[in-house]
Amino acid sequence: MPVRLARRFRFSSSHLYRRPEWSEEENFRRFGKCANLPGHGHNYRLTVTVGGEVDPATGFVAELQGLDELVGREVLDRLDHHHLNDVIPEFAAGRQLPTSENLALWIADRLNRKLPAELRLISVLVAEDEDLAAEWLRD
Amino acid sequence: MPVRLARRFRFSSSHLYRRPEWSEEENFRRFGKCANLPGHGHNYRLTVTVGGEVDPATGFVAELQGLDELVGREVLDRLDHHHLNDVIPEFAAGRQLPTSENLALWIADRLNRKLPAELRLISVLVAEDEDLAAEWLRD
Amino acid sequence: MPVRLARRFRFSSSHLYRRPEWSEEENFRRFGKCANLPGHGHNYRLTVTVGGEVDPATGFVAELQGLDELVGREVLDRLDHHHLNDVIPEFAAGRQLPTSENLALWIADRLNRKLPAELRLISVLVAEDEDLAAEWLRD
Amino acid sequence: MPVRLARRFRFSSSHLYRRPEWSEEENFRRFGKCANLPGHGHNYRLTVTVGGEVDPATGFVAELQGLDELVGREVLDRLDHHHLNDVIPEFAAGRQLPTSENLALWIADRLNRKLPAELRLISVLVAEDEDLAAEWLRD
Amino acid sequence: MPVRLARRFRFSSSHLYRRPEWSEEENFRRFGKCANLPGHGHNYRLTVTVGGEVDPATGFVAELQGLDELVGREVLDRLDHHHLNDVIPEFAAGRQLPTSENLALWIADRLNRKLPAELRLISVLVAEDEDLAAEWLRD
Amino acid sequence: MPVRLARRFRFSSSHLYRRPEWSEEENFRRFGKCANLPGHGHNYRLTVTVGGEVDPATGFVAELQGLDELVGREVLDRLDHHHLNDVIPEFAAGRQLPTSENLALWIADRLNRKLPAELRLISVLVAEDEDLAAEWLRD
Repeated sequence: MPVRLARRFRFSSSHLYRRPEWSEEENFRRFGKCANLPGHGHNYRLTVTVGGEVDPATGFVAELQGLDELVGREVLDRLDHHHLNDVIPEFAAGRQLPTSENLALWIADRLNRKLPAELRLISVLVAEDEDLAAEWLRD
Repeated sequence: MPVRLARRFRFSSSHLYRRPEWSEEENFRRFGKCANLPGHGHNYRLTVTVGGEVDPATGFVAELQGLDELVGREVLDRLDHHHLNDVIPEFAAGRQLPTSENLALWIADRLNRKLPAELRLISVLVAEDEDLAAEWLRD
Repeated sequence: MPVRLARRFRFSSSHLYRRPEWSEEENFRRFGKCANLPGHGHNYRLTVTVGGEVDPATGFVAELQGLDELVGREVLDRLDHHHLNDVIPEFAAGRQLPTSENLALWIADRLNRKLPAELRLISVLVAEDEDLAAEWLRD
Repeated sequence: MPVRLARRFRFSSSHLYRRPEWSEEENFRRFGKCANLPGHGHNYRLTVTVGGEVDPATGFVAELQGLDELVGREVLDRLDHHHLNDVIPEFAAGRQLPTSENLALWIADRLNRKLPAELRLISVLVAEDEDLAAEWLRD
Repeated sequence: MPVRLARRFRFSSSHLYRRPEWSEEENFRRFGKCANLPGHGHNYRLTVTVGGEVDPATGFVAELQGLDELVGREVLDRLDHHHLNDVIPEFAAGRQLPTSENLALWIADRLNRKLPAELRLISVLVAEDEDLAAEWLRD
Repeated sequence: MPVRLARRFRFSSSHLYRRPEWSEEENFRRFGKCANLPGHGHNYRLTVTVGGEVDPATGFVAELQGLDELVGREVLDRLDHHHLNDVIPEFAAGRQLPTSENLALWIADRLNRKLPAELRLISVLVAEDEDLAAEWLRD
């Protein structure tokens, strides 16, 4: 019985897009006002979708209490009310910019390592506003 | 031409989560305030997605009037403004709890039996609030 | 400096409309499916608006932590995941029905007694769904 | 690394459903008030989803500036604040009616021809209101 | 006891802004693409707010069934799935343009004449999209 | 004829709450995670409500093009994609913290000085997320 559960979370963070090896002009040409120092921010919405068997006793694919704790500890505590360029090693080292795409990949990687074995991560969708969202989707 | 049509419906129902063979403590440990007697409620949103050929005359995958009547008769009339633990035999007999997962499966089973042959049920998504949704998705 | 702060809360509760001294026919004629036994439910949204001076040190009209605790203790703990006909004395005694209007009045009365003196309750708005809201508004 | 980017656009247009070779009665029987002359309108939301590799330098699957210009020029400039029955040749010639299904197919065809080679069009979703959406989805 | 009830309705209509005594250039200078022939459309949301005494028997300020019928008959049947420039005499005669402001005034005038005596019309808010709304508000 | 027009704008900014003369402990006790360095951010929504006479020729209370330009130049260009603690003198000098309350007051003051004489500023509402909004309201 293929059933999925989609759970939405929220976090409010700041970020900016800049590559230090590029000139000011190049940064603004590619990133527009997203290159402004010292950054700006968003109310992010994160939707985590998992699949699995429905537990016949509870009717749940996933126990929400456990899922919420996991996403809270592994993701929200790290990102919420922080500056995204600082708090993830790949971003802080300048190897990656904190785009919604890279956030979705980082969150998916983190949750894939920690989800209980009976749950399968299907999708991680990161929306920075009503009009833009990036999604990691299992092949 | 793969085209899908997603139609959203609403119903307002009450429910609670309890297993009679469990102790009070176990029920509250697993279900939290969702175990409170005699229940609580939600404004549910139901999104039914069907696929099919676009009718060249009308440009429709599905005639909305017929789809709305079917979902109204088979689903909404049974659930809307009712107590979910009472109105579905599997729930009333205590074999299943009225979670969003079980609702999605029950609705999908019901619509799969009744949809006209030219329509293929793709997904049944049941959201109990803005942050939690269960989805039955055709393999 | 007239500044107001509007804070939104959510609770999920069940209720029904019935007057025991009325016949079945009269109850359904007046209340429609809202008279169905044993009830149905909603995701309520509650917006509490307060006015006051902006504290020059913090820039706040109201400290959110205190406001959230007050509304949580006085209102949400009483209503959330409960059956509204049971949990408020006026409703349980059958003197009032748990409409959005009566909920707004009950919440306004309760908050008016407990709000700190420097805050003035301006409005209590109770919405049972996207299309219906009742508001108590200070004269 | 499978990452998708979903970008939402809006346009406000008018349309109506009528087949000239059908009688008035037949048009109203099939299309209801959507057959009213000279038409009605909607605030459409269009969600374009593309897939591709994440550019290691920018962290983007797609440069938004280019995607927005493309959709603006190829789609929005043609549809926004226009009467849909007039502005697309298949619709104007009476070969197709301007349903959400046909709009999704027309937009998908148009974007498939013009998207840069490194992007893959995954989905075109056209919603005429909160409750009805048609989606072209790549097989 | 000052209680208000806000009820939301929806209608989907088309319109355009043009003054026949103005040149093409002047029409486009003032109205932009809203002057495009033969028009465009919106999903309008209409919020009607009424005030009154709470009926002690029902807990209602207004019986929804009666309010919905009144607004349906007096307003929605006239506007929904129609072209606004045609269906209101002041608009059809070219004396007024079908802006949200003029719609709010027309609806308020119509409801003020027909509301039962125990209800007081407080506000008529007409929103043509998420970002623009006009409101008639009782002095 | 009392008619109001409400226009919604959006901006994405970062901010933090800290008083330099307070200890770390005091800052976190009062501001919680809003005191985190170097800040976090939000998608702000700004609703500007103006009142005035309906122009008989256009049916407008306010010409949107002019209103949008004014708010863009006076407010959005200053705040959008910037760090709010930096861009307003009162905030940068540490005299005020960039709360929604202070933003509403700053925006209201700025618009009151620049609105054309025929428009009256009624309200400036600043919402930092779905659940919190501050409003300056004309007495």
